[in-house]
Amino acid sequence: MVKNMKKNDVKESKFDSKMKMVYSFEEGNKDMKNLLGGKGANLAEMTRIGIPVPPGFTITTEACHLYYENNKKFPIGLKEQVDENIKILENKMNSGFGDVKNPLLLSVRSGAASSMPGMMDTILNLGINDTVVQTLINKTKNERFAWDTYRRFIQMFGDVVMGVPHHDFEVELQKIKDKRKVHLDTELNAADLKELVKNYKSLVLKVTKKSFPEDPRTQLYMAIEAVFGSWNNPRAIAYRKLNDITGLKGTAVNIQAMVFGNMGESSGTGVCFSRNPSTGENKFYGEYLMNAQGEDVVAGIRTPKHIEELQKQNPQVYNQLVEIKNKLENHFKDMQDMEFTIQEGKLYILQTRNGKRTAQAAVKIAVDMVNEKLIDKKTAILRVQPESLDQLLHKQIDPESKKKASLIAIGLPASPGAAVGRIVFNAARAEELSKKEKVILVRTETSPEDLIGMSVSQGILTARGGMTSHAAVVARGMGKCCVSGCQDINIDEKNKKLTIKKKNVVLKELDYITLDGSSGEVFNGKLPLVDPKLSGDFIKLMKWADEFRKLKIRTNADIPRDARVAREFGAEGIGLCRTEHMFFEGDRILAMRQMILATNEIERRKALAKLLPYQKADFIGLFKEMNGLPVTIRLLDPPLHEFLPKEKKEIEELAKALKVDPKWIAQISEALHEVNPMLGHRGCRLGITYPEITEMQVQAIMEAACELKKKGIDVKPEIMVPLVGKVEELKNQKAVIQKVAGEIMKKYNVKIDYMIGTMIEVPRAALTADEIAQEAEFFSFGTNDLTQMTLGFSRDDIGKFLPEYLKNNIYDKDPFAVLDQKGVGQLVKMAAENGRKTRSNIKLGICGEHGGEPSSIEFCHRVGLNYVSCSPYRVPIARLAAAHAALKN
Amino acid sequence: MVKNMKKNDVKESKFDSKMKMVYSFEEGNKDMKNLLGGKGANLAEMTRIGIPVPPGFTITTEACHLYYENNKKFPIGLKEQVDENIKILENKMNSGFGDVKNPLLLSVRSGAASSMPGMMDTILNLGINDTVVQTLINKTKNERFAWDTYRRFIQMFGDVVMGVPHHDFEVELQKIKDKRKVHLDTELNAADLKELVKNYKSLVLKVTKKSFPEDPRTQLYMAIEAVFGSWNNPRAIAYRKLNDITGLKGTAVNIQAMVFGNMGESSGTGVCFSRNPSTGENKFYGEYLMNAQGEDVVAGIRTPKHIEELQKQNPQVYNQLVEIKNKLENHFKDMQDMEFTIQEGKLYILQTRNGKRTAQAAVKIAVDMVNEKLIDKKTAILRVQPESLDQLLHKQIDPESKKKASLIAIGLPASPGAAVGRIVFNAARAEELSKKEKVILVRTETSPEDLIGMSVSQGILTARGGMTSHAAVVARGMGKCCVSGCQDINIDEKNKKLTIKKKNVVLKELDYITLDGSSGEVFNGKLPLVDPKLSGDFIKLMKWADEFRKLKIRTNADIPRDARVAREFGAEGIGLCRTEHMFFEGDRILAMRQMILATNEIERRKALAKLLPYQKADFIGLFKEMNGLPVTIRLLDPPLHEFLPKEKKEIEELAKALKVDPKWIAQISEALHEVNPMLGHRGCRLGITYPEITEMQVQAIMEAACELKKKGIDVKPEIMVPLVGKVEELKNQKAVIQKVAGEIMKKYNVKIDYMIGTMIEVPRAALTADEIAQEAEFFSFGTNDLTQMTLGFSRDDIGKFLPEYLKNNIYDKDPFAVLDQKGVGQLVKMAAENGRKTRSNIKLGICGEHGGEPSSIEFCHRVGLNYVSCSPYRVPIARLAAAHAALKN
Repeated sequence: MVKNMKKNDVKESKFDSKMKMVYSFEEGNKDMKNLLGGKGANLAEMTRIGIPVPPGFTITTEACHLYYENNKKFPIGLKEQVDENIKILENKMNSGFGDVKNPLLLSVRSGAASSMPGMMDTILNLGINDTVVQTLINKTKNERFAWDTYRRFIQMFGDVVMGVPHHDFEVELQKIKDKRKVHLDTELNAADLKELVKNYKSLVLKVTKKSFPEDPRTQLYMAIEAVFGSWNNPRAIAYRKLNDITGLKGTAVNIQAMVFGNMGESSGTGVCFSRNPSTGENKFYGEYLMNAQGEDVVAGIRTPKHIEELQKQNPQVYNQLVEIKNKLENHFKDMQDMEFTIQEGKLYILQTRNGKRTAQAAVKIAVDMVNEKLIDKKTAILRVQPESLDQLLHKQIDPESKKKASLIAIGLPASPGAAVGRIVFNAARAEELSKKEKVILVRTETSPEDLIGMSVSQGILTARGGMTSHAAVVARGMGKCCVSGCQDINIDEKNKKLTIKKKNVVLKELDYITLDGSSGEVFNGKLPLVDPKLSGDFIKLMKWADEFRKLKIRTNADIPRDARVAREFGAEGIGLCRTEHMFFEGDRILAMRQMILATNEIERRKALAKLLPYQKADFIGLFKEMNGLPVTIRLLDPPLHEFLPKEKKEIEELAKALKVDPKWIAQISEALHEVNPMLGHRGCRLGITYPEITEMQVQAIMEAACELKKKGIDVKPEIMVPLVGKVEELKNQKAVIQKVAGEIMKKYNVKIDYMIGTMIEVPRAALTADEIAQEAEFFSFGTNDLTQMTLGFSRDDIGKFLPEYLKNNIYDKDPFAVLDQKGVGQLVKMAAENGRKTRSNIKLGICGEHGGEPSSIEFCHRVGLNYVSCSPYRVPIARLAAAHAALKN
Repeated sequence: MVKNMKKNDVKESKFDSKMKMVYSFEEGNKDMKNLLGGKGANLAEMTRIGIPVPPGFTITTEACHLYYENNKKFPIGLKEQVDENIKILENKMNSGFGDVKNPLLLSVRSGAASSMPGMMDTILNLGINDTVVQTLINKTKNERFAWDTYRRFIQMFGDVVMGVPHHDFEVELQKIKDKRKVHLDTELNAADLKELVKNYKSLVLKVTKKSFPEDPRTQLYMAIEAVFGSWNNPRAIAYRKLNDITGLKGTAVNIQAMVFGNMGESSGTGVCFSRNPSTGENKFYGEYLMNAQGEDVVAGIRTPKHIEELQKQNPQVYNQLVEIKNKLENHFKDMQDMEFTIQEGKLYILQTRNGKRTAQAAVKIAVDMVNEKLIDKKTAILRVQPESLDQLLHKQIDPESKKKASLIAIGLPASPGAAVGRIVFNAARAEELSKKEKVILVRTETSPEDLIGMSVSQGILTARGGMTSHAAVVARGMGKCCVSGCQDINIDEKNKKLTIKKKNVVLKELDYITLDGSSGEVFNGKLPLVDPKLSGDFIKLMKWADEFRKLKIRTNADIPRDARVAREFGAEGIGLCRTEHMFFEGDRILAMRQMILATNEIERRKALAKLLPYQKADFIGLFKEMNGLPVTIRLLDPPLHEFLPKEKKEIEELAKALKVDPKWIAQISEALHEVNPMLGHRGCRLGITYPEITEMQVQAIMEAACELKKKGIDVKPEIMVPLVGKVEELKNQKAVIQKVAGEIMKKYNVKIDYMIGTMIEVPRAALTADEIAQEAEFFSFGTNDLTQMTLGFSRDDIGKFLPEYLKNNIYDKDPFAVLDQKGVGQLVKMAAENGRKTRSNIKLGICGEHGGEPSSIEFCHRVGLNYVSCSPYRVPIARLAAAHAALKN
């Protein structure tokens, strides 16, 4: 092996045997995470500030990197440096590694620069063998401890290093427990454990065809190599991918003198947090077990005790621990998650790190620590993950009840929160029943016709459609819980039945179900919900975020109620009002349908005249709510066939109402049918073929604006032309808008400060933004459609292949949830730059679903957009994410 | 007015009164077209080389430009320069403009740098008035001539300059003819014409409330202004748009001494061509009328005589004309289109220009002129418009019969050629009847199920779908005539009836219709067709084109027959073989459907195994035809639901054949349904979710290749993965392909030199071409889909708004026919550049419909693609277009 290395050494100067690959704890500090890993750096730091840490040293992440570069062989010089440090450690501990008189045992633990809890390997009690175990017995006079330590070592080393399945060891352990008729490990005596050691060794030989290694140094090298190897085990790779951990060199290896929590009842081990990680309360929190090693606390066979009990059991150690946790929190300026061991009454800290916490705790701890002058506002803001706020804004299923509940299906977590109600299978029934009952609307998929039914339901469950399906988008807009694309459920609307074959469950109308829109889970029956709490700390943190962010936050809202909610959450304008959502209620839909069925312009204008007062009243409502703030109104966007009824009964009703032949309606429906409606006759294509539609909408907007302005309300309409791909389209619609707007302002003798702009949602628009900016005063990136067209993914159909794509790592994330920065983002960046080249003060925003997603918001900040717009319930998340983006960039 | 101009003069230095705005014919030459217009430059050139041209001068296009710049007022100095030149002309002609003794009459004619025949205005006989007419009578002793000239002038000036409707003059003329009971103008005598002059003047006064201007100079200025004005009349603007004429400054104005063809029977006028513009035959060709002015020849009241008759009537003039046409053709080195006038036996040439010609004539003339050493090969190539070759490759309706035929509807010219046959309304009936009858398949729209029906029909007529609809694409591939999107026809398939309400026409099954796929016309009944002729000249010209072009030309072909046709037309490989077209015949579709209905991989593999031998046999056929040339095979692309039957009867048949419940088929169909299939589960998404499909296809390709190679056939397969948007997709499929290909080559012990590449048809692929080129050995731009996604236009649905878009000048051309260079082209260019940056030798081609369209081919040449691929019948067009591109760039 050394020969090979020498060969490599000639070629690659980085295989420098003089490179320092091992640092004793005294040589490191907390800022050396990249080199020593998080655990190693913090062990060094604790050593440096006088915390009782068992002495030891760290093999660098760089050494791990070289190991892989060197075709999985130790880099030259590593063994020598390890041996050197072992010697120092032996001196320090006044013992010898493998020494038959005073043996040194070691722990060997992984630790990368980023925390990857439980992903990589650890070996404790290394250095023990048939000779050493006897010495241990002689020295400690604790035969049980010695054999317990030995059997633990074989079990861990056999599993982690030699690849004997963990389960096989468990079987052996269970056999001996059964033989002894005992339940707990601690009930086994020294002889039992000695027998177990023998059995374990036979097991290892049988499985691996190799004897268990007796030589401590061989054990050590094998353990180091195993830890290196664990860096690239599948679960570690998956974890890094999932958590976007990139750019790391490898794992460090921490080698430390063992301290023993299993030396009897005055020994023990535990885990504690400097504050409550669940509530954030500034109160010491933790668990411990006496006469145990680390793995026993998590194994769950014995129930650990609450840390407060230690105060009674060993007040001295408890007080020391409190002192240490205070010192560490003050030192690291964050809530600490610590591991400790008590060896015969003496306290050792084995690890400290910043503790994971719930969203509620994150907010409270961040704000408290600013109040305690421990951290500044910027740090506090960065301590709270924007996405996590979602938990705080919606109802949740009571966590305790959820554990015992009957999970019947899992769909996509389409709109967060939780909902309980009785099943209904259509929108009309939802409307009817919702007057006296809480209902859940269950549909194969929803369409705009279901809008009112959705609004009166507690939650929505669909069998089809993705995270950006109609159901999902509308539900998020309403802040209503939704589980979409739940493929396992089969809906028989006619017979009012819902079947889940896999679970042998059949539910009928009015049966109760409970939805968790944050996880996609569907439960049978009625689970208790807990209300969201918006604490004062939350509001304070939001205000701090506002001080730092550069991006404005707007909301997507179509009705005054949503606008009000969003404004309460801090929205600074409406970034997207979808006017078509206004056309579905009551008489409106009739007039809309009459317009669509018109065979000439005169009939069409007649029907549009009926719609005008409705639209105007809607805009008056929105403008009032948003007094002083801009309101971006998108002109009619969806294809007209979406407004026509599909069911025979409805068609007949419509025919009756309009006094026409039902066949005629069917014929028009057929004529309007499109193969790919997404790429069809919609958006500005409607306004260009039927300018009278644009005229009516502009009239409604401007009349509303003029009337309110006369009453002293500050109205800032921004009229947005959808689906523009070529500047000529915008020119065409702009002429119509300007003509009508001019006429209305003249009629009212009022000047409204309005803007005309366009969606950038067709790739061609992004590619020719320089030209389009000649006509547009603002761009709003419609990244939903832009993603559909740039990727060629219909969001309604993506469910057929996206799961396979995610599984095969073709996409990391659903590109409709997280902006595809390389593809779609490239177009956004190009359009932003070229748009500004033409019109330096052009206003740039985003109104796709990505406007509420933190990584996408950071992208928007980086390319210099002016605002993001998102659904009302994501406004706080966007505010915080925008602050993060500003602070990070 | 002069005051105003002075004011402008101060501001704008270009209003320089010293600028030369008028050139006498002696001052110009043929290379001054931009300044003098085509007519003016050629008049000057003819003057220069001694052709008898009536003297005159030209007002520059620059003067016209200044006229518009100067808010439609004459630029300073223009009148003075005109007056000066009039003086010179008076001297030359020994007469005076408005002179009562020896009056000079003028013609005032427009003429831009590009020929815009008939689009702009002309005034003849200018300078005549009540006094001058008397002088003319005295001088010529020809009273009839004098009054005829006067009435002609009032009629033309009144119409063109003063805006009196042409029709009103016709009414007056008719009145007097009726009164005299004569039929021809020439039958009116001097007194009649004198009376007509009086009546015309009253008419002008009545309509315009102004007297007809008597002052010749006023007449002249008004005429010049009218010609300037005609530059921007709507039809001239439309003509320039239609013919892509841009960058011109305006029209020139040619002012010339009048010569009179209406001075009696020794005078006359005519139009002639130096060669036959219809056949290209090198034979003098033309028409003339004695005692007439130019407009009489085209008016059609008197039938002009063939030019050969002039030889008998006036051999001297005839011989002089022949001499002149020879001189002009030799001088301009192109077939000339000339106007001449004979004034009392003396010949004058009024105009010469390069003559318009049919495609057949263009080819013959170009090749003849090279043989005559008049032009070189490059010039010959550029003389033939690539698009025009289409006429030569397909049957045409006999032009004479067409004139008298009953046109019942006009659709889109989806696939050129002509077809006659009996109407059938479905594919099955087409198959059945085609055995004894020629049939035309008439459908609302076609689908892949209609494939065989289409192949046995003479032509296809659809009521829906654009130029790139299924019907259009397939028909072009088959070289079969197709009229698509014929909105006026209403098809009642059930009752086997076709109704055209507008024309009150109802046709039944087996009635005859005739289609013209080159014009989109549909005729009632059976019209005679004429066969295409591929002359030796054509083949010669094609070979010359091949010498100059840089682009390779491939073809889109799915079956051996198409491949053979394309190879005969000069295709250098297959650029696109759509494997799905192979799945529709006979038992294949059954196996295909079995595969789709499979519920697990094992069943799917069973069905695929049945398809394997068919695919393999198909590839053997194609590879044999293309021996030595590359064959690009696209893996399965369309969504699976396209292969399932839709009609109840067919579903039942399938259920019976597969021994399953029809409900089950309906359920699968329903589950496969997509909202936007274009953006759905298709392309490589199929191969990724069902790798066994890719495996079967690669097995078929490689087994075919190996077997043929063993027989000494040179096979060059290029396996193409469709719809890639992200390099990971290609990586995934490449792994499958390489694995199977390796296994097959090992099995046969043959090494096949194959390539793996991808379509670039998703915008994201173009945007990330640098990454994709890491895996792809070639890119083929699928500009059909790339256009759909970049523009957001579904080609199946574009008919709903494209007509309005073209009408409103939002798009100039259907972007599916002519590549949108600014939008889609930008992506192509970007991908070509970035692809080459990653892999310098990457092979780049295009296989969308644009690959056969000349302006798009020029674009492909400019961005440096290696080849274009088009349907077999467009291969010659592409060869010539590629040569044009190379010679022009």
